[in-house]
Amino acid sequence: MFPKVHAGMDMEMNSNMDCGKSKGIIGEKSMRILVDKMKKYPVSIWRTLWKVGRDDPRRAIHAVKVGLALTLVSLLYLLQPLFTGIGQNAIWAVMTVVVVLEFTAGATLCKGLNRGLGTLLAGSLAFFIEYIATESGHIFRAVFIGAAVFLIGAAATYIRFIPYIRKNYDYGVVIFLLTFNLITVSSYRVDNVMKIAHDRFFTIAIGCGVCLLMSLLVFPNWSGEELHSSTVFKLEGLARSIEACVNEYFSEQDQIEANQDKSTEDPIYEGYKAVLDSKSFDETMALHASWEPRHSRHCYRFPWQQYVKLGNVLRHFGYTIVALHGCLRTEIQTPRSVRGLFKDPCIRLAGEVSKGLKELANSVRNRRHCSPEILSDHLHEALQDLNTAIKSQPRLFLGANSNQATNMLALAAAHATSQKHAKYSSGGGGVSLSSVKTDSSALMEWKSKRESSERKFLRPQLSKIAITSLEFSEALPFAAFAALLVETVAKLDNVIEEVEELGRIACFKEYEHGDENIVVTSDKPQIIDVTQNQLPSHGVD
Amino acid sequence: MFPKVHAGMDMEMNSNMDCGKSKGIIGEKSMRILVDKMKKYPVSIWRTLWKVGRDDPRRAIHAVKVGLALTLVSLLYLLQPLFTGIGQNAIWAVMTVVVVLEFTAGATLCKGLNRGLGTLLAGSLAFFIEYIATESGHIFRAVFIGAAVFLIGAAATYIRFIPYIRKNYDYGVVIFLLTFNLITVSSYRVDNVMKIAHDRFFTIAIGCGVCLLMSLLVFPNWSGEELHSSTVFKLEGLARSIEACVNEYFSEQDQIEANQDKSTEDPIYEGYKAVLDSKSFDETMALHASWEPRHSRHCYRFPWQQYVKLGNVLRHFGYTIVALHGCLRTEIQTPRSVRGLFKDPCIRLAGEVSKGLKELANSVRNRRHCSPEILSDHLHEALQDLNTAIKSQPRLFLGANSNQATNMLALAAAHATSQKHAKYSSGGGGVSLSSVKTDSSALMEWKSKRESSERKFLRPQLSKIAITSLEFSEALPFAAFAALLVETVAKLDNVIEEVEELGRIACFKEYEHGDENIVVTSDKPQIIDVTQNQLPSHGVD
Repeated sequence: MFPKVHAGMDMEMNSNMDCGKSKGIIGEKSMRILVDKMKKYPVSIWRTLWKVGRDDPRRAIHAVKVGLALTLVSLLYLLQPLFTGIGQNAIWAVMTVVVVLEFTAGATLCKGLNRGLGTLLAGSLAFFIEYIATESGHIFRAVFIGAAVFLIGAAATYIRFIPYIRKNYDYGVVIFLLTFNLITVSSYRVDNVMKIAHDRFFTIAIGCGVCLLMSLLVFPNWSGEELHSSTVFKLEGLARSIEACVNEYFSEQDQIEANQDKSTEDPIYEGYKAVLDSKSFDETMALHASWEPRHSRHCYRFPWQQYVKLGNVLRHFGYTIVALHGCLRTEIQTPRSVRGLFKDPCIRLAGEVSKGLKELANSVRNRRHCSPEILSDHLHEALQDLNTAIKSQPRLFLGANSNQATNMLALAAAHATSQKHAKYSSGGGGVSLSSVKTDSSALMEWKSKRESSERKFLRPQLSKIAITSLEFSEALPFAAFAALLVETVAKLDNVIEEVEELGRIACFKEYEHGDENIVVTSDKPQIIDVTQNQLPSHGVD
Repeated sequence: MFPKVHAGMDMEMNSNMDCGKSKGIIGEKSMRILVDKMKKYPVSIWRTLWKVGRDDPRRAIHAVKVGLALTLVSLLYLLQPLFTGIGQNAIWAVMTVVVVLEFTAGATLCKGLNRGLGTLLAGSLAFFIEYIATESGHIFRAVFIGAAVFLIGAAATYIRFIPYIRKNYDYGVVIFLLTFNLITVSSYRVDNVMKIAHDRFFTIAIGCGVCLLMSLLVFPNWSGEELHSSTVFKLEGLARSIEACVNEYFSEQDQIEANQDKSTEDPIYEGYKAVLDSKSFDETMALHASWEPRHSRHCYRFPWQQYVKLGNVLRHFGYTIVALHGCLRTEIQTPRSVRGLFKDPCIRLAGEVSKGLKELANSVRNRRHCSPEILSDHLHEALQDLNTAIKSQPRLFLGANSNQATNMLALAAAHATSQKHAKYSSGGGGVSLSSVKTDSSALMEWKSKRESSERKFLRPQLSKIAITSLEFSEALPFAAFAALLVETVAKLDNVIEEVEELGRIACFKEYEHGDENIVVTSDKPQIIDVTQNQLPSHGVD
């Protein structure tokens, strides 16, 4: 280990010595850069703040709501008549507001109820223990209280690990523990424990009341709506993703290498990334939404769990698109000229799937059943076309050096070669068949590369080279791409099934001809990634 | 909408009338069932509690630690000399313990520091405002305090939406807001605000101190360790998953249908499910781990971000396995007899990939570099074998009714048919080629099915039938499976790269021959899904 570290240090010192001469100039420069940075800092902060609000103006509204609720609750302290009634304990109300007022109404309700229940339960238990403790002497009482605190503390913490409790009542358990300790421990020094418990419950109730008032009546944000619009957002993202994916696969330019580093700005990735990690968001929103009063005239119980199920199916759709995306990024590539043979049917098929997803998104957004033409003949035709295209190239999937004399793949490639010869010198490999390396030459090349440049890694990375040098690889990748594309149609079926089920349970209105046109206009502004609005939950008491 | 609901009610009434006669018997029965359930309830609770502890005994230890810390802090109240020093405000210390003591040391440190910083900042700001407020009259002061509460409340809430703040300092901001309100509002009625602020800070410091003592010195759980072992767990899960996946694909029994419903108990799903939704867990653990004191003698800064990067690569590996899993579940299937032709090379290749993953898991677990044979010739040979197997079936990928006279696929199927004829009557379709439906017959069948049984859904589900009726489909699925399998090798390469990078930065020890044997023995007991230990974070003050 050590020699390595030293070697690194040596190199660093050498480079320092080399740079020594120009240090003065660099010092001035870095000073100027620092000043520039200092100047830019407030601007960048301002931009960040502005962006947060512009992405979703409801955030600003929520902030104002919290400020307002706090001011309202502070009046308990500031106004004489109110203060004389409640006294010092009014501070609990202020704390409750800080903790309970969440972004959505459902979350506020859920927390408020948990807090209320926890306080009530803890109060009852504390009284019971207090009742036993008062019967005995001073020292025994201290020991008893200590033991009770230990036991209840350990038990409550242990219970929090049970998945069901953790999901639904974790906050309640924490508040229970807190209030229990507050009352039990205080009871040792204070005589009127009853008053503490009563005041705490009363002020917490006031705090919760203000929170509910604010979250239910003043510009309410519903968890159900968030879940609803995130579902629309995800459907649209997937639609964009699959289209972008197929377009990139058949694009003439070599976008693959250009996009490799900045994969975060990739339109394909942008489309599906919201879907992949949506599980906990969906579940939390569905949980909170189930606390919300219904806000639909048509439906008595809104099927939030159905949204979770739909989210699950969408996630699986997303995984297929990731695999499809993987076909673009993989080391082995079917030559571009061969891919070109299937360009039109593939793009058409992807377009149909994408259209289907968009129609589903519109259907969910407008709470109406989806168009009966969603699984139109176009989709079927596109599938048939792809089928025909693949069958029209019967020897495509043969190995390059198989015994067959005529190899369509080679022919197609040769054809493309003669057509686009000009491109060869500029474009980076992968266009002609000759770029598919044979076993030995690839290994040789790799070995010489390895010797000339020092790699970071100690082990030889054989597998990459092993894959690219295999001959079957030139046929397989396109087959995988096509199969995955066909798989998306099957997945689309599942999605349609779940959306239909959702429409059935949630009593979506019937589809009317012309609905589609109204929808497209209101398309853009509603695309918000609402998952960014979920603040971490702190139950600060 | 309404007619439907009524129809449902009618049916319900009818069934009620039918059942009316046997109501007495049913009543008795349901009573007995209820009693049985009541008897079983405590048992099931006990089982759940036992399971929680058995899955990870550290949970029980953590619960005891919380109880102990609470008792310790309660002594401030219970012991006379301590109480006279601190007084009523000792309750803040108790609260701090409830809130700050988290499962891992890193989380506790992170929360404790956030709490301390938030309190300190809020105290300073509150004093500043108090200073301005005291200069003025009583009413102006109330208005001023109200305005300050509003502004600071809104600003702090708004700031919480900034991604950077939300990730790192959300809890601090909440505590800041809380303390600020506590002090500012109290200052209106209480003269010695200084004492409140001082007491609050002091007691919170005591609470944090007890928490740190408990989490750092008494059976500490390190976030870094959790991240480390969850990485090992994920690597092993993926290894199991890919093996199970390939075995199921080539298994003779029709497991596919059997597993379709209970997909949660599926060994394949069990293997990769921990990987898919691991993003937030990884990031949280890495964040907390960065607060922990180093616990390695070899390395000064442990590269937690590298674990996050490795997790990212593993997630992408997982997506490929999901796609592979999708090949098992898809509607279109390559006939089993044809698959059988490639069974051995595929199973061998998967076995090699799985072995590679296991070796990586062992390497990470034992903090040593991985075996130089990880990318052994075996893997390369397995790839070559698969290549040879595919090339030896040159016409496999031809359509069934292509112009070629001899269709290897049909031949192979016919061959298999003659061999395993006995199995046909019992096994459910998909074995022989005849099970691949042609366009018209499938559509007809589907239509008659639809007429005879009432479907839940209004729209025709055309796409499923459209896919299964296409002829290219019998060739494509296996190609996709093979390509995805080859893709896992490429992904394995990425994983190896990241693990090597991790080993380099974290100064893993060199691989020594024989390391592998030591490892296998300590294999089983360490497989814990640590992601289940992360309790929701409540900052109850």
